[in-house]
Amino acid sequence: MAASVQVHPLGVNDSDAVGAGTRIWAFAHVMKGARVGQNCNIGEHCFVESGAVVGDGVTLKNGVCVWEGVEIEDFAFIGPLAALTNDRYPRSPRLELAAVRKRYAGHDWLVRTRIRRGAAIGANATIVCGVTIGQFATVAAGAVVTRDVGDHELVAGSPAKPIGVVCKCGQKTRVAGAQAQCGVCGLRYAQGQGGWRPVESS
Amino acid sequence: MAASVQVHPLGVNDSDAVGAGTRIWAFAHVMKGARVGQNCNIGEHCFVESGAVVGDGVTLKNGVCVWEGVEIEDFAFIGPLAALTNDRYPRSPRLELAAVRKRYAGHDWLVRTRIRRGAAIGANATIVCGVTIGQFATVAAGAVVTRDVGDHELVAGSPAKPIGVVCKCGQKTRVAGAQAQCGVCGLRYAQGQGGWRPVESS
Amino acid sequence: MAASVQVHPLGVNDSDAVGAGTRIWAFAHVMKGARVGQNCNIGEHCFVESGAVVGDGVTLKNGVCVWEGVEIEDFAFIGPLAALTNDRYPRSPRLELAAVRKRYAGHDWLVRTRIRRGAAIGANATIVCGVTIGQFATVAAGAVVTRDVGDHELVAGSPAKPIGVVCKCGQKTRVAGAQAQCGVCGLRYAQGQGGWRPVESS
Repeated sequence: MAASVQVHPLGVNDSDAVGAGTRIWAFAHVMKGARVGQNCNIGEHCFVESGAVVGDGVTLKNGVCVWEGVEIEDFAFIGPLAALTNDRYPRSPRLELAAVRKRYAGHDWLVRTRIRRGAAIGANATIVCGVTIGQFATVAAGAVVTRDVGDHELVAGSPAKPIGVVCKCGQKTRVAGAQAQCGVCGLRYAQGQGGWRPVESS
Repeated sequence: MAASVQVHPLGVNDSDAVGAGTRIWAFAHVMKGARVGQNCNIGEHCFVESGAVVGDGVTLKNGVCVWEGVEIEDFAFIGPLAALTNDRYPRSPRLELAAVRKRYAGHDWLVRTRIRRGAAIGANATIVCGVTIGQFATVAAGAVVTRDVGDHELVAGSPAKPIGVVCKCGQKTRVAGAQAQCGVCGLRYAQGQGGWRPVESS
Repeated sequence: MAASVQVHPLGVNDSDAVGAGTRIWAFAHVMKGARVGQNCNIGEHCFVESGAVVGDGVTLKNGVCVWEGVEIEDFAFIGPLAALTNDRYPRSPRLELAAVRKRYAGHDWLVRTRIRRGAAIGANATIVCGVTIGQFATVAAGAVVTRDVGDHELVAGSPAKPIGVVCKCGQKTRVAGAQAQCGVCGLRYAQGQGGWRPVESS
């Protein structure tokens, strides 16, 4: 499998769990112990840490760091310089203070984040750890996400708030009450638990 | 021309359209098909994509990505980690969905952005694609720009709003009604179509 | 001292003032003339400029640039892609305008920033130059800091405003009037000049 991973001469792949067809660009680094699926694009200056999980067909644009505790499901898009996190109360682990030493001795500090299938995170957005970004949701560029985002929701601002509903194809839908429809591909959505769901199969 | 481009041993220049006197720092990459003018500074961890256009005397601080569809005119300044974009409704192009495949097969997804002559984009600012940042305008650090910015306007916040008028030299001017004057170099400005313009030649 | 600095084969250390036990990761660059203390972590894609000062035990996560004029004291934590700055009115120094040429000929443009002992700056936060981030203060992820932050203050938002008090250990304290106590390690704090201070020694 590793044979068909494409790594730029100035990129580094230390993982034996990267899927076929995945491309790792210059100045990007996939650490040992990181899991990356098939047919992904790991852009320049990306970093995928040991313990991070990236699905199939994921696009990481430049400068994205995927930390331990972050799971990115299949076909998600993470825009350039979007920041993911995994520690809610960070301190330098080098600080000589009993409570800090104790905290970083194990993994109690680790707070998980999940980016679900097909979601898109805009450029320079910030995802505070502990949240789930729903399936095919979109986070606008520059937004600061502090709460869960429902399936197909579009959120923007600091802190990010829902401002619309997006189709699987990424386009903003027309919303009327608890119904929505995509003007581009015609798919319909209904509001439900945890966001919006397609009314018809597609 | 290419002979006098200075590229750090750990930087990469794949373009034959980079002007004399331009310096490319470590871990920066200018792709084949990117156009960069003379006497530019391409900071560390920058990325200039095929199809991007950068004028003369431009300063890109560290970590700036200039995508296809982005044009940066002469003498602009792009602060560190400022994010430019070129896709308003992003999805992973690897997603197996007819509407997505169709969208990314051509260039319909591409939305252009223009940073005009002498403008300055602050650190970590986000420029949503489709806008024009006017001549000698300034975008404050951390701002999220979603609309056009007029010539010499100063904008800040998320979303960014006008908060002042800046001189060619970068300083904030004193504004009185539709007139403004720089306290440092004395230049005067008048409000007009598309922002502010110098009253006297300089 | 330089002998025990650990530099990744794809990292660059040009400084002879980096302390023992400090680790410099791949695609990071410490310039000649930069000062970095002992036992620091300089993450991937970091940049420490000539004239920058970094204390002991500091953690710089990925993509952090520390510019001339920025001082980071011992045991501070700078989150991934957090942006520091050192120029309040930036223009491309290459602009052929007398006032700009004059400004960048010397160091009049330089505005200093100080991150004090034990402070933590969240991911993707923006620190506008000229401020001091107090001891053991915390800046939330994605915040845009435009004013001084007091000791032990927690700030968030754009522009950042105080929203709480954090303990030395990083945890948010319970606040009652001008008193605060950490529920994790029990330390007490009292509000005073320039923020909050521990009531008991620790």
